[in-house]
Amino acid sequence: MVTFRRVKPPQTDRKFQVGILGGGQLARMLCLKAHEMGVPTAVLSASAEDPAAQVTRNWIQGSPSDLENLTSFLSLVSVATFESEFMDVELLTKANVSAQTQFYPSISHMALWQDRWSQKSALKKAKIPTADFVEVLPNDTYLSLSQKLNSPSFVIKKRFGGYDGYGTFVVHSTKDFKKSHEQWGATPSIAELFVPFRRELAITFARNSKGQVVHFPLVESFQHDSRCLWVKGPIQAAKSQPLIRSLSALLKKIRYVGVIAFEMFETKSGQFLVNEVAPRVHNSSHYTLDAFDIDQFSLHLKAILNQPLEKPAALTPAFAMYNLLGSGKSPIQLQSKTNAQIHWYGKKENKRGRKMGHVNAQAKSPALALKKAKAAAKDIRV
Amino acid sequence: MVTFRRVKPPQTDRKFQVGILGGGQLARMLCLKAHEMGVPTAVLSASAEDPAAQVTRNWIQGSPSDLENLTSFLSLVSVATFESEFMDVELLTKANVSAQTQFYPSISHMALWQDRWSQKSALKKAKIPTADFVEVLPNDTYLSLSQKLNSPSFVIKKRFGGYDGYGTFVVHSTKDFKKSHEQWGATPSIAELFVPFRRELAITFARNSKGQVVHFPLVESFQHDSRCLWVKGPIQAAKSQPLIRSLSALLKKIRYVGVIAFEMFETKSGQFLVNEVAPRVHNSSHYTLDAFDIDQFSLHLKAILNQPLEKPAALTPAFAMYNLLGSGKSPIQLQSKTNAQIHWYGKKENKRGRKMGHVNAQAKSPALALKKAKAAAKDIRV
Repeated sequence: MVTFRRVKPPQTDRKFQVGILGGGQLARMLCLKAHEMGVPTAVLSASAEDPAAQVTRNWIQGSPSDLENLTSFLSLVSVATFESEFMDVELLTKANVSAQTQFYPSISHMALWQDRWSQKSALKKAKIPTADFVEVLPNDTYLSLSQKLNSPSFVIKKRFGGYDGYGTFVVHSTKDFKKSHEQWGATPSIAELFVPFRRELAITFARNSKGQVVHFPLVESFQHDSRCLWVKGPIQAAKSQPLIRSLSALLKKIRYVGVIAFEMFETKSGQFLVNEVAPRVHNSSHYTLDAFDIDQFSLHLKAILNQPLEKPAALTPAFAMYNLLGSGKSPIQLQSKTNAQIHWYGKKENKRGRKMGHVNAQAKSPALALKKAKAAAKDIRV
Repeated sequence: MVTFRRVKPPQTDRKFQVGILGGGQLARMLCLKAHEMGVPTAVLSASAEDPAAQVTRNWIQGSPSDLENLTSFLSLVSVATFESEFMDVELLTKANVSAQTQFYPSISHMALWQDRWSQKSALKKAKIPTADFVEVLPNDTYLSLSQKLNSPSFVIKKRFGGYDGYGTFVVHSTKDFKKSHEQWGATPSIAELFVPFRRELAITFARNSKGQVVHFPLVESFQHDSRCLWVKGPIQAAKSQPLIRSLSALLKKIRYVGVIAFEMFETKSGQFLVNEVAPRVHNSSHYTLDAFDIDQFSLHLKAILNQPLEKPAALTPAFAMYNLLGSGKSPIQLQSKTNAQIHWYGKKENKRGRKMGHVNAQAKSPALALKKAKAAAKDIRV
């Protein structure tokens, strides 16, 4: 028989242990796992049709970019977390003056990673390899930038708000540069060395405030039309060990709390260059929902609640994830001939190219798992 | 790139694809999996505090034993399912006269399995081994029953509403019989041969209306105080193959649709005797949530929606489940040092002995998995 001990009541009178800012698919999956874990969780989002709003009784209507809505929401929750790092940091700070709710990741970490300039500067400072970069100044030309980067080809990236390849512009000539300038004008940007790569990889870490750090394995992620199409893994890469150690050290040094995903290029010479950092649960780790003894959403909740973290263990030799992208047509038919696992986001509108859900599959090798996941995805009519 | 084909709209104007009668933990877990699968699901239950009411926007307040509530709920859903087979069959039939909603399992299957007399008669007819039994008649005495069963020891079981060992009475003497009679009086009952057993086993099947039948492996389940405490598996038992074939044939013969669980005794001589049948998702298969490529809740939904069924495949060599039973004390502290998976039911009251949640764990052997699950359960303070 299990013995149950009395414990001290939690030191808070807040109604919800966790508050999630935003109601998209990442918030939805966080919320579903919070239910399983018995973590009282509230969601702040604008519409009752939002993916996360549908899966909880504790949906609170409001905009995460409205001061008043934020202020009252924060007073209800002990720990606040978010599904997008592209939030207004000043507004969040102001909204949290009276509530003094613990943000995990912290607001200053959100600020650090949401800006490509400070993001890449932090990587550089920690000696984590990343493509060379410079700030784009008002007087810069194609020539000045190619001279600074010592390369005829580079990529202009918006400092704020870029994701999934949106907000990037490959430049090989003065003509390209002019085009990018016409489009973005004075938008704060960086110019980054253009890196031809062999494949794109990703890895997700978690750290709690006790200082425990764990991570999932390295995976390959494939982008189509600037958007993640599939992920497979685990990827064995002997040269990745020093990078994993450096990333872990960086998280410790900056006292990061929560889940964080790193996307990187593997160059043709086998070098790793970290390309993008997302301080949150991430599409590249959705496979964990079905292939590991803990998924990234549960792990994030454990990390931000300062619960003990155990190293995630794979349940199967290999796994894959295939995104279900909208066709813009309806109706939708969701069913698979196999036991590949469908994760549907419940989005109201089926827009072309929109992430509507994903499918997970497991097998003996990454290639076989991808084959299974892809077959299941083709079977589903979105 | 995935190609998406246009499909015919579903042939129904009902608002929800699935309606769940009842709001307990089984309804909650069905609902969570319906969210993942993208199956629009509504829940009918009495209180907003019910486990399933908390995890959906589509909770409809009402009693599943009220004619009016049932009638209006059934008109909203295409397929109705239930979390307890102990419902009033006449009332359900009456409530469904105008809606003509498809029940899966059907109302007549609910009737068949909810009555121990018809349940055991069906097993006997299908030549599935079960302990000998007779109906208890008003004039029966200890002597008459022990003569009919040819044994000094037998078990009196209520025909209706017994579960988890509630509603059973072991009788070794006239004194015992008198006690049971005093307590139950004219309650319809059966008397069953008392079977000393080596261990209790369980197995869960699913069948869709296409006729596909699949099953999970045989597991051992351990009861404490008439209540399931833990489950471990898979259990290898060469002699179980003929039984599995017979159970599968029975489901085909009666055209059963949905998940169904069979609990059985393994006698000291290695014989199997089916002891209890539950036409629904069942505590003995909660381990599937984390150890298989499909869990019993998703499988039930696929079966009742007539989606294709693939044989469930284990992700790990072995697994275990440990129930979290209430201590009657609060507050509760839900956390585990390991990645053993907590599944919490969100019940408002922590009653002594009540099923509050469960923990799953995986390992190389059933014994090791049970050790992990038990350790995690001890860590959690309910």
